[in-house]
Amino acid sequence: MSLRRYSRALCIESGEEMAEKFAIGIDLGGTNLKSGLVNSSGVVAHRHSMPIGDDKSSSRIIDLIIGEIDRLRKGAAGDAVAAGCGIPGIVDFERGFVESSPNLPKWHDVAARDLLSVATKLPIVVDNDANLHALGEQRFGAGRGHKNVILLTLGTGIGGGLILDDKIFRGDNGFAGEVGHLIVEAEGLPCACGGRGCWERYAASHAFQTYADKLPREERNQLCLSLKDDLNPESLARLAHAQNKTAIKLWKLFAGYLGVGIASLVNTLGVFTFVVGGGIVKAWDLFADEARSSALSHTYKAHADRLILKKAELGNDAGVIGASALAFDTVR
Amino acid sequence: MSLRRYSRALCIESGEEMAEKFAIGIDLGGTNLKSGLVNSSGVVAHRHSMPIGDDKSSSRIIDLIIGEIDRLRKGAAGDAVAAGCGIPGIVDFERGFVESSPNLPKWHDVAARDLLSVATKLPIVVDNDANLHALGEQRFGAGRGHKNVILLTLGTGIGGGLILDDKIFRGDNGFAGEVGHLIVEAEGLPCACGGRGCWERYAASHAFQTYADKLPREERNQLCLSLKDDLNPESLARLAHAQNKTAIKLWKLFAGYLGVGIASLVNTLGVFTFVVGGGIVKAWDLFADEARSSALSHTYKAHADRLILKKAELGNDAGVIGASALAFDTVR
Repeated sequence: MSLRRYSRALCIESGEEMAEKFAIGIDLGGTNLKSGLVNSSGVVAHRHSMPIGDDKSSSRIIDLIIGEIDRLRKGAAGDAVAAGCGIPGIVDFERGFVESSPNLPKWHDVAARDLLSVATKLPIVVDNDANLHALGEQRFGAGRGHKNVILLTLGTGIGGGLILDDKIFRGDNGFAGEVGHLIVEAEGLPCACGGRGCWERYAASHAFQTYADKLPREERNQLCLSLKDDLNPESLARLAHAQNKTAIKLWKLFAGYLGVGIASLVNTLGVFTFVVGGGIVKAWDLFADEARSSALSHTYKAHADRLILKKAELGNDAGVIGASALAFDTVR
Repeated sequence: MSLRRYSRALCIESGEEMAEKFAIGIDLGGTNLKSGLVNSSGVVAHRHSMPIGDDKSSSRIIDLIIGEIDRLRKGAAGDAVAAGCGIPGIVDFERGFVESSPNLPKWHDVAARDLLSVATKLPIVVDNDANLHALGEQRFGAGRGHKNVILLTLGTGIGGGLILDDKIFRGDNGFAGEVGHLIVEAEGLPCACGGRGCWERYAASHAFQTYADKLPREERNQLCLSLKDDLNPESLARLAHAQNKTAIKLWKLFAGYLGVGIASLVNTLGVFTFVVGGGIVKAWDLFADEARSSALSHTYKAHADRLILKKAELGNDAGVIGASALAFDTVR
């Protein structure tokens, strides 16, 4: 019997039920709302996911979140002490405001924390979703045991979250962690951010097309014939796994640049633990070793033994677990 | 009469002298040892600088520092409550050890904090010198009022210190702040660190030679004739101030790359306040505006109003003031 169960059994024996404490984690995405009831060890007791539908106005979404919080509280076998809520956008954590969100274009300066707190009568924290994913992985996932962890989410861009000295680092007004816009080529490819040479132009899904366009014509044509699908990380991973040399070459180019950005963060921040999530990690075997050696070729040799590059472990639960961890921190 | 003076006058009137509290700041360089007695408002009451001489062994330098601390304490008109000590090298802050130092090659795992603390019977903190310069500027210099400040020291390389959320950020084992090794060209010039494309190869003093070497031969020869001195930031600044077009062009190249690195830090960390020190800031008028516009062309347009690029204000006192600030923090 574990110590915890033993102490619980003792309490029951003595007629006193020791109620477990829970926090509610909410992870709002552009299309789905995930929620969960999570204990202080990061274990999800109940989880739920629902489409948010077409009406993405802040009033409606806030109502949906209130509904989820109430439902989860009723189902809890113990006390829900607080709730944390991840939002995909620029969040002013101190004020609890969502300033703006590319995925929720109608949201402007929404006082999300106070709206949720008044309605649920619970302590509420609101933060950027990527920050909470990072916190989840640092506390209970691939980054546990490390006080400094950088989460990289590889998809159409490179998202990120910085956990520095055991806390989310938000920078001035919540802008920290946009690691996809680290500049790896001073006069490189133009980026949607208005700058150029940003990391995510070279080490996220759209980069594969860029690399393919630079192939000699014959090789490119051959690649197009071999692909029975659009050119994307999935189709290229299938080809690379079938030993297609061109596909393997494109993955190497991707991995090389992934390593350059990681090295730049290592050199600047002195952080050595990187947790990598997002759709592209399904092809981990095609890029992880190469990314690591590229990173090491761009840093001090003394760093070689320190660099930790790991796949994210919490999957779809990361945001919910991170949100609940921040909620627990708030009431502690 | 200020509130402080008023309360002091009251104390004196009531027969009780309120002694002012001081901390001692030490800033050890490769050739000089600077020290000062500093009050909690960052005002240096006494300062001293001495050459450390040829014997740079840790035992001798530690003795020199002990001597300085004792001398300054005796001269204090109040209590010296603690001392802080900046060392040019890799410092394990938690353990108070100097792991290694390029400028003090005989130092290996020196228990500097405990050695100083036992000898002086004062609370001691030991940190990397650039971290303490940064803290000095953030608390009492060009960065005051900002919780997030990045110090850039432009010299033969780019040194740096990161103040994040009002505290020195040290990373894993004191490696943070080596911003000169931010990578701005993935496959760029080789760097002494073993990597390539590092920022300091493009925006520190040696970069001017690199840019000059790439000039058309005629223009380069003309520049050499115009320079009555070696090619370096000072001689190029003199020429640029005399409207020499080639010299102005080289400063623009330097400023352009300076801006790229700043943009990369803005994008990644969401920090908007940069304090720039080091010898090259004497030519501030030749690069600051251009660096700023280069930085803005590499970041989100929304950041334009937020970016603050300022000259360091504390000069040679920065390290001493920062060291004393950290010492005060420790006993608070």
